[in-house]
Amino acid sequence: MTGEHSSKQYDMDLETIRSRVLQMGGLVESQFQDAMRSFRNGDRELAQQVINGDEQVNRLEILLDDTCNHLIVKRQPAANDLRMVMSTVKIITDLERIGDEAVKIARVASNQAERGNGLNQYEFVRVIAERAKELLHEALDAFARKDEKQATRLIAQDAIIDHEYSIIMRSLITYMMEDPRTISTALDAIWVAKAIERIGDHATNIAEYVVYVVEGKDIRHSDYVTTKLEQ
Amino acid sequence: MTGEHSSKQYDMDLETIRSRVLQMGGLVESQFQDAMRSFRNGDRELAQQVINGDEQVNRLEILLDDTCNHLIVKRQPAANDLRMVMSTVKIITDLERIGDEAVKIARVASNQAERGNGLNQYEFVRVIAERAKELLHEALDAFARKDEKQATRLIAQDAIIDHEYSIIMRSLITYMMEDPRTISTALDAIWVAKAIERIGDHATNIAEYVVYVVEGKDIRHSDYVTTKLEQ
Repeated sequence: MTGEHSSKQYDMDLETIRSRVLQMGGLVESQFQDAMRSFRNGDRELAQQVINGDEQVNRLEILLDDTCNHLIVKRQPAANDLRMVMSTVKIITDLERIGDEAVKIARVASNQAERGNGLNQYEFVRVIAERAKELLHEALDAFARKDEKQATRLIAQDAIIDHEYSIIMRSLITYMMEDPRTISTALDAIWVAKAIERIGDHATNIAEYVVYVVEGKDIRHSDYVTTKLEQ
Repeated sequence: MTGEHSSKQYDMDLETIRSRVLQMGGLVESQFQDAMRSFRNGDRELAQQVINGDEQVNRLEILLDDTCNHLIVKRQPAANDLRMVMSTVKIITDLERIGDEAVKIARVASNQAERGNGLNQYEFVRVIAERAKELLHEALDAFARKDEKQATRLIAQDAIIDHEYSIIMRSLITYMMEDPRTISTALDAIWVAKAIERIGDHATNIAEYVVYVVEGKDIRHSDYVTTKLEQ
């Protein structure tokens, strides 16, 4: 009976970690969305909210790392469960850095609004922002459902974001060259695009850890995805 | 006797991990230096070497993560040792991302050399590159010697890099505005400066994990450093 009890308790511990990761994921998703809204609307107040909200993201990171450490010491998980915990520790880091990128976007939004710049650069980054938002949401979803197939599909999508990013860069550079007075505002859009592209990278990392947890296969830096999708 | 033997073996396992982290650290240090040299000298061959060398960095990341996982399963470390292992897992991620930033610098160097651009932007980033190089080296050194004091000092230095970075940005923007024909090359310098600044961030993360290992105190996102330095 004690064994069964412990095992239930153990499952509950793992479940707590999983649901906290999703809570942290939800938080950084809304940080990212709010940052983009503040950039689109020149909303300084909302930008400030995002900047302040980063503290909460950081607190969750520390709390979750702690919870994972305690679980390992207390439960001494076997290889399979340990894989889940170690991936979680990595995912937490990526989530925290997505939070950092959201803050960068909010800072650009705030500065731009302060300069009272009428030019809105949002159109340049709208599509890539939508894609990164979806990618992040689906990566968290794949984590929640331990859906290795969805995760594998997502990893391939990061290339689309990278491609869109390079198109944005080229058009913004042309824009600056044609009218040097737009350099400052074009650079703002470049910083935002770069932050979005990084969010895409972090979301892809998360998807890779999901595959690692489910398949027990480390697919980072491999051509696993190409092979898998060709099958 | 078996206990003693196991414990020695255990220490050896921990030592193996530590020395492999330092090996990986040495590799990314030279990747970063080679990338900067290829940018300075417009050396496409060296840039290509850096790009190819990333595979080795990635292999070490996977190998080290694996070694840490095995150690946890086999040795079931107590809280103290586990802290070391978990920090190592985080440090590995930062090292791998420093490697990625070195590749970005090498790509810029390669493209710039390909365009046969005579303008050398190296001077803009020389000082910040030197500082980031030192910061990384000293962070690895603090890790090797478990020197929490040195690590604490380093964390404060990242602010200097960030400050220099913003000065570079402003001067490059002025440069572009004064002569729009320099936009492309100035942007190259901006990408390199940004990569260097991120390397500084990652080196700072490493220093933070060193403090965490030695002091058992999680100082990420806190005003620990300010307080400590004021004492």
